[in-house]
Amino acid sequence: MDKRQLLEVLDQVRGGAMSPADAAERIGTVPFAEVAHAVGSTMIDHHRELRTGVPEIVYGASKTADQIAAALTELAARGGAAIATRVDSAKADAVKRLVPEATVHELARVVMLGTRPDRPPAAEIGIVCAGTSDLAVGYECQLVCEFLGAPARVISDVGVAGVHRLLARLTTIRQCDVVVAVAGMEAALPSVLGGLVDAPMIAVPTSVGYGVSIDGLVALASMLSSCAPGITVVNIDNGVGAAIAAVRIARMGR
Amino acid sequence: MDKRQLLEVLDQVRGGAMSPADAAERIGTVPFAEVAHAVGSTMIDHHRELRTGVPEIVYGASKTADQIAAALTELAARGGAAIATRVDSAKADAVKRLVPEATVHELARVVMLGTRPDRPPAAEIGIVCAGTSDLAVGYECQLVCEFLGAPARVISDVGVAGVHRLLARLTTIRQCDVVVAVAGMEAALPSVLGGLVDAPMIAVPTSVGYGVSIDGLVALASMLSSCAPGITVVNIDNGVGAAIAAVRIARMGR
Amino acid sequence: MDKRQLLEVLDQVRGGAMSPADAAERIGTVPFAEVAHAVGSTMIDHHRELRTGVPEIVYGASKTADQIAAALTELAARGGAAIATRVDSAKADAVKRLVPEATVHELARVVMLGTRPDRPPAAEIGIVCAGTSDLAVGYECQLVCEFLGAPARVISDVGVAGVHRLLARLTTIRQCDVVVAVAGMEAALPSVLGGLVDAPMIAVPTSVGYGVSIDGLVALASMLSSCAPGITVVNIDNGVGAAIAAVRIARMGR
Amino acid sequence: MDKRQLLEVLDQVRGGAMSPADAAERIGTVPFAEVAHAVGSTMIDHHRELRTGVPEIVYGASKTADQIAAALTELAARGGAAIATRVDSAKADAVKRLVPEATVHELARVVMLGTRPDRPPAAEIGIVCAGTSDLAVGYECQLVCEFLGAPARVISDVGVAGVHRLLARLTTIRQCDVVVAVAGMEAALPSVLGGLVDAPMIAVPTSVGYGVSIDGLVALASMLSSCAPGITVVNIDNGVGAAIAAVRIARMGR
Amino acid sequence: MDKRQLLEVLDQVRGGAMSPADAAERIGTVPFAEVAHAVGSTMIDHHRELRTGVPEIVYGASKTADQIAAALTELAARGGAAIATRVDSAKADAVKRLVPEATVHELARVVMLGTRPDRPPAAEIGIVCAGTSDLAVGYECQLVCEFLGAPARVISDVGVAGVHRLLARLTTIRQCDVVVAVAGMEAALPSVLGGLVDAPMIAVPTSVGYGVSIDGLVALASMLSSCAPGITVVNIDNGVGAAIAAVRIARMGR
Amino acid sequence: MDKRQLLEVLDQVRGGAMSPADAAERIGTVPFAEVAHAVGSTMIDHHRELRTGVPEIVYGASKTADQIAAALTELAARGGAAIATRVDSAKADAVKRLVPEATVHELARVVMLGTRPDRPPAAEIGIVCAGTSDLAVGYECQLVCEFLGAPARVISDVGVAGVHRLLARLTTIRQCDVVVAVAGMEAALPSVLGGLVDAPMIAVPTSVGYGVSIDGLVALASMLSSCAPGITVVNIDNGVGAAIAAVRIARMGR
Amino acid sequence: MDKRQLLEVLDQVRGGAMSPADAAERIGTVPFAEVAHAVGSTMIDHHRELRTGVPEIVYGASKTADQIAAALTELAARGGAAIATRVDSAKADAVKRLVPEATVHELARVVMLGTRPDRPPAAEIGIVCAGTSDLAVGYECQLVCEFLGAPARVISDVGVAGVHRLLARLTTIRQCDVVVAVAGMEAALPSVLGGLVDAPMIAVPTSVGYGVSIDGLVALASMLSSCAPGITVVNIDNGVGAAIAAVRIARMGR
Amino acid sequence: MDKRQLLEVLDQVRGGAMSPADAAERIGTVPFAEVAHAVGSTMIDHHRELRTGVPEIVYGASKTADQIAAALTELAARGGAAIATRVDSAKADAVKRLVPEATVHELARVVMLGTRPDRPPAAEIGIVCAGTSDLAVGYECQLVCEFLGAPARVISDVGVAGVHRLLARLTTIRQCDVVVAVAGMEAALPSVLGGLVDAPMIAVPTSVGYGVSIDGLVALASMLSSCAPGITVVNIDNGVGAAIAAVRIARMGR
Repeated sequence: MDKRQLLEVLDQVRGGAMSPADAAERIGTVPFAEVAHAVGSTMIDHHRELRTGVPEIVYGASKTADQIAAALTELAARGGAAIATRVDSAKADAVKRLVPEATVHELARVVMLGTRPDRPPAAEIGIVCAGTSDLAVGYECQLVCEFLGAPARVISDVGVAGVHRLLARLTTIRQCDVVVAVAGMEAALPSVLGGLVDAPMIAVPTSVGYGVSIDGLVALASMLSSCAPGITVVNIDNGVGAAIAAVRIARMGR
Repeated sequence: MDKRQLLEVLDQVRGGAMSPADAAERIGTVPFAEVAHAVGSTMIDHHRELRTGVPEIVYGASKTADQIAAALTELAARGGAAIATRVDSAKADAVKRLVPEATVHELARVVMLGTRPDRPPAAEIGIVCAGTSDLAVGYECQLVCEFLGAPARVISDVGVAGVHRLLARLTTIRQCDVVVAVAGMEAALPSVLGGLVDAPMIAVPTSVGYGVSIDGLVALASMLSSCAPGITVVNIDNGVGAAIAAVRIARMGR
Repeated sequence: MDKRQLLEVLDQVRGGAMSPADAAERIGTVPFAEVAHAVGSTMIDHHRELRTGVPEIVYGASKTADQIAAALTELAARGGAAIATRVDSAKADAVKRLVPEATVHELARVVMLGTRPDRPPAAEIGIVCAGTSDLAVGYECQLVCEFLGAPARVISDVGVAGVHRLLARLTTIRQCDVVVAVAGMEAALPSVLGGLVDAPMIAVPTSVGYGVSIDGLVALASMLSSCAPGITVVNIDNGVGAAIAAVRIARMGR
Repeated sequence: MDKRQLLEVLDQVRGGAMSPADAAERIGTVPFAEVAHAVGSTMIDHHRELRTGVPEIVYGASKTADQIAAALTELAARGGAAIATRVDSAKADAVKRLVPEATVHELARVVMLGTRPDRPPAAEIGIVCAGTSDLAVGYECQLVCEFLGAPARVISDVGVAGVHRLLARLTTIRQCDVVVAVAGMEAALPSVLGGLVDAPMIAVPTSVGYGVSIDGLVALASMLSSCAPGITVVNIDNGVGAAIAAVRIARMGR
Repeated sequence: MDKRQLLEVLDQVRGGAMSPADAAERIGTVPFAEVAHAVGSTMIDHHRELRTGVPEIVYGASKTADQIAAALTELAARGGAAIATRVDSAKADAVKRLVPEATVHELARVVMLGTRPDRPPAAEIGIVCAGTSDLAVGYECQLVCEFLGAPARVISDVGVAGVHRLLARLTTIRQCDVVVAVAGMEAALPSVLGGLVDAPMIAVPTSVGYGVSIDGLVALASMLSSCAPGITVVNIDNGVGAAIAAVRIARMGR
Repeated sequence: MDKRQLLEVLDQVRGGAMSPADAAERIGTVPFAEVAHAVGSTMIDHHRELRTGVPEIVYGASKTADQIAAALTELAARGGAAIATRVDSAKADAVKRLVPEATVHELARVVMLGTRPDRPPAAEIGIVCAGTSDLAVGYECQLVCEFLGAPARVISDVGVAGVHRLLARLTTIRQCDVVVAVAGMEAALPSVLGGLVDAPMIAVPTSVGYGVSIDGLVALASMLSSCAPGITVVNIDNGVGAAIAAVRIARMGR
Repeated sequence: MDKRQLLEVLDQVRGGAMSPADAAERIGTVPFAEVAHAVGSTMIDHHRELRTGVPEIVYGASKTADQIAAALTELAARGGAAIATRVDSAKADAVKRLVPEATVHELARVVMLGTRPDRPPAAEIGIVCAGTSDLAVGYECQLVCEFLGAPARVISDVGVAGVHRLLARLTTIRQCDVVVAVAGMEAALPSVLGGLVDAPMIAVPTSVGYGVSIDGLVALASMLSSCAPGITVVNIDNGVGAAIAAVRIARMGR
Repeated sequence: MDKRQLLEVLDQVRGGAMSPADAAERIGTVPFAEVAHAVGSTMIDHHRELRTGVPEIVYGASKTADQIAAALTELAARGGAAIATRVDSAKADAVKRLVPEATVHELARVVMLGTRPDRPPAAEIGIVCAGTSDLAVGYECQLVCEFLGAPARVISDVGVAGVHRLLARLTTIRQCDVVVAVAGMEAALPSVLGGLVDAPMIAVPTSVGYGVSIDGLVALASMLSSCAPGITVVNIDNGVGAAIAAVRIARMGR
């Protein structure tokens, strides 16, 4: 409730059109819906999109198939479409049985339901993946970007150990308005790319690697330590966070 | 050298206006200048701004006052202005003696030289600092934003332990096109802010704290783990990186 | 044996009502019972409740179903009731087969046996959970509080990324005499709450999260680094410890 | 502003005693004062005590002597008294020169100004320190407790490597209503104490130790891993946090 | 080959009883046997016991059942008896099928074969275990002590959270010539015990615990940081290492 | 494309033998082939061997059997032979079903396809393994060395706890031109060996160990901290990296 | 007070020779002395030696010169002699000014006062130091051993990177009854030595090293991970702890 | 002593030209010299160069100026020249006063004494430094290479954030027979270089960086995780180790 709305309510109180109790209720009430599901209930925040520009995205890793299906259905009923991430294939199958009209993207571990309304065009997002193993995170990012209304393309297999492969794609990458760089292991890709493009760049470390890579922590720390200034970073394997950040930026350029 | 320029060179070769040797020279040459200073020499990358949209910023922590003064002078001679960060007060004094026309910003540990040419207006950047102790990083960020041509304001002392202080400033913050959130200790500020604004947000962890805070690592990890999606993060105390990222985004909105 | 009891024994010795040998036995004896079970035997400490105000709670994670069942039976036989935590569903089924009158709380991973005698009323405990994924720990905490005789309610889904959801519940939370705040990921909830309530607050980090969250270590460190002073913290996912601490405090307020 | 206050405002609006604009102002206004000092300004939160039961305590480690003196003066002017912690002896001398009526507690690194009004009596707090080296943190805790109106006594040199020393003080410790246990190195004190007392217990790890102790991290982790249930923990060397937590509990017992 | 043996060989060379080539062979030869098994072959070091006082103990965790069976058979054929540790129950079953005369100790994860010859008596070893969960490591230690010829007894369930339980067993523990203290979680047992006994003490951290315990690392660090001086420590769950160290000491006291 | 080739192209442009567009295409084109497989496609870098002296080696851990089979087939079709590492036995079976002519080395987790052409002889590589448990990594290293054309022998079971076993093999080891030392746990082997040989030495830490060994991190750090100077180190269990480094060195000695 | 003493007291009570109150006092009293010094007071535990076989050793690092001098004087007055460790040279000078008869050992950072009474001979302790940089810890260990009545010799500069230097001293080392191995960096010394001697061995990691050595943590972890079984370990740079452990063992062999 | 030398000794014994005692002495003796200096004495290992191909290099960080001067003098007296590293400027001045003919290289923190005899030419070593801040380590490496008889050149300021600067130097780098890559921060240089050259490559992480860089640990881990295979790594800032490794390889190519 912003100041204008508050003044309207207060005017109605003054005018007698609204009782103080109703006004107090109105001022203090926050709209939530309760979704019934197997265990307890989850409050879904329907005003989130108005407030933050991004609707709720269901994080599947810590939810049961029942909870995912209920949340997708509830969200899609209101927003036209809904998306869940980190849904492994067993869970995805179970969700699909509960909500047959859902679409499953296996490699990206994403389940989608419904169609989002048309949105004003946004600037284009380029998702650059260092290696084949980084594609799952890259595709998750791409699907979330598109769900949020921004066109996104994946450019893959351009790891820095073959820097000419990256240079060969440079023109394409430089045409993107926002760049997401996805890499595991030593994660040198954003450092090289950071010296070659002038677009805002978001780096996503992945858990690809072994031994001293420590499940992506080294890729993360490497990106944060980059000698190429102006790179921002999200959590390990966090394709969703990168997508939301990228879309917020892309909307500025539309 | 982009494809268009390459074709021009090749046309000149075909037309005889340029010899193959000159063309090979032209295609293969990378322009650098060498700046003489006390120990060895540093290559300054004059094309960096063309390539990445951001001129070189002198990182003072690992340089002597001599090296900082030489780099500032060289960069300002070509670009009109130059800036050095992480210059402690002793070094800043020494630089000032060598380059009297330089300006020193003590709390922000910044030294500037010269004036940048006018630039097209960019969207406004809001730098939100959780506590007084985070202001040094916040001011460093502000000075670099302005050096790069983007207006930036600092909003301070809005830590989440007094969430009403943050809410009191919310209208101001929501007017900014890009938000930089600076916080140390448990760094909860971006999580709360992330649920209240729809602008792109960059979080800067600071080394403020003690004990288990481990020099800012917990603030960093906390920001990366945020339950508010779409927040991107830079290295600890990295006001410069946040500024560059913010300015790149702000330019999309101008 | 406290000083008063010691003097009574010594008086009996002086009066000849007790022999020195019996007195030595009496003074030096520590009462234990041995519970037979499948592997070796466990000493159960029946005086613990007199000494610490809290009876033994069976930690199920490192015990077999046989050991859990034996310990519950022995403890309930003496204290009227017994409780075991961290009992996964397979173990819980096995315990239930051995002790059919036990009650299983699946999400909370708790098994209870018997009824505790009535206790003097204690102040009310509020258990505030940031997200749905934190509920398992929250319910474990609630069950242990109630087992120990203190009323406890769970307030859920009030994560700080939607701070209005927390504010909407603030009146309810402020009515509680002791607050337990349960959160994973960056665990910002206690920092925000810590600035809004004046009750003693115990924070429980959970292992919810991924990547840099490192199984709850970041949530733990974040809570310990909180800018809201006076928050105390227990181990990751330690709903039991939080419950015992909360009940000890609640008893002061009865 | 709670619901009752809101209804009063709304009643005044309905009755015409207050205009909607004034009411909007009233509902949305948050009271702050600005304190001028050397660098920028710090918002001091005068309603904090009403909200959280604890006035602002000045954290001296990250402030200059000027900032500390200004904050103490401002806070004491309104609340009758003020306290600053983590003020090393050099800073304390400088503060004393600026505010001669301040009192310096050197070992505890505390500076106080003014006298707090009488407060209702609270239950007694016992601060148990394992070794001589833990006393600085113990005294800081004691001074903050007393500043907040709760009587506190320090019981020292009862480390577990001479467990009879602890047992010799047990009667004294058991008489306290709230126990704060301060220990460095392996920090076994709260585990032993936790099995002997029934009062709420707060453990404070200290940075005493060397080598694998890692500046108190092992003491912290050891306390969090304690086999004695119900112990809560604060950050390393955080005597202030422990004091605030203890006082909040002690107030329940008055 | 010691100096005496070398002189004998050289005397034989001088006397012509041995050729220089044979002597060179003799001096340079190190006796090994090769044991055939499924994958490659393992050199077993038959002189190890002469050199270090301890025969080879088979570490089962990184070997197949085939390798364990072959090593036990080979070692027992020469030394009369052999022992393998860290043999989980599936592997133990497989070894038992290959070597039916072997004895399996399931909780201790130990497999033994044959009988060691009588040995001179050694001083008695007391293995003190904090909790039931530490017994597996305690029993492994006991079996290895006895295999190496030293009597060892296990004293269990004397964790410091019920310090009277420990004191009740103190006379028994003080009768032991060498003490092994086994504990997980915060591992406070050796600190308390270290102030009560004068025997050499070896501490074994166990991986019992959760959350911040980090698989026994905190127990380990806690023991190394102990305020009770003179405690030595072995790796996490390393009952074998503690047994060998204890037996070496016990032999000094026989 | 080196300068000579560039001049040739430019000469053809000047002479009219090549159009500027074709030349631009030629200068800018990097040769890649696309291999179709189940999910997406992988760019295989056929020029890698020319550039780095080493063909692509398929890293099996993060690929499906389908992807491994496709990559091996494609690479072998061009280079005569191909090799995949970190292929567990289930995947290896699946690859073998898809490409029956492949050879599986189970312990080394390697799958090979085809025959490499004869190569000029290289110096000999000695792979010294501390214990039986390090052999898997040692054999992986050996197979990759031989795939790359360098003779390699494995010398095993020479851990430093029986230093005479190492000394007994010293003559053999000193005959090698390049030494690879493979060890887990405390990884002391390279330190001892480093003082006894003058050949270039590469150390490979393995994840053998438990408790404080932390999956090989201690072995790695120990090797990097070695008091024997001049030892270089690769990632944990990285037999492939050690092999490539060793072969590059061995080629210098041929 | 043991059972026999308790029975005597009780007999006196029965016979009327002692009142119950006196008996209660007697049973409950623990003897301490209070030493006055600059800040507060430290309880010195005069029964410690009777209980643990080792008198109090003053840990100088966290005490002022005043506190060290007072403790040394008090301890020497009762036990004939006293020792303080970790006394840096500035503090040592100050202590010497306060207690001129004290002896300062600068490299070992030890201050001693008085002469210990003759003690029964103990077995000999050998302190083996890997490098020159480890000598400070080695000498501290030697001085404490001798203070406790056990002969100790230092054998230095036998690091494993020149294993022949170690072998050259092997006869000497094997003559020691107890071995203390002191090493920094990768700390391979105890692993090699552990395979060559049959005496009890205590390993002391030192903070010698840089980079990945992390202030001795790698040396510590390396020793704990040793492939030579039966090595026990103390905290980093803990020469005192190693000395006490060694002396306790040496007393068994006298 | 190798087998041939042993046979010669034995032949002399057989022939009576050497007594068994002398032979035993001869076989068992290891040649050392003792260098007197201020504190204790250091064994210098004069056979080290014969055994490992590299003479002793004095590590100055943990030695006094006296010890450094004595060691340099002793080593130079025998080998013609000597070198000490990690000698800060204060120590270097003190050494220079003690040994005026020594040469000090301030940035590289190296002190040299005397001239090494001519050596057979070795292959050329290229030392590639990412940034100006890495030069100290690069120059240390270069001086040690040249001390050991191998020509080495430094190529600097070719960090990957300006990849064209690296490509501009590529021809020069590819002409080197061995490559040492020196980089701090995220240390991406060896990954890019590793895909462009076929020479053996040694990577040296430096402690350049801040925040999450953790004193070079991230640069180290990044290099070990490199996606470019065949890169070997040494400890942080370890220019000496890299030089020795590089020279050993360079000797193979001479």
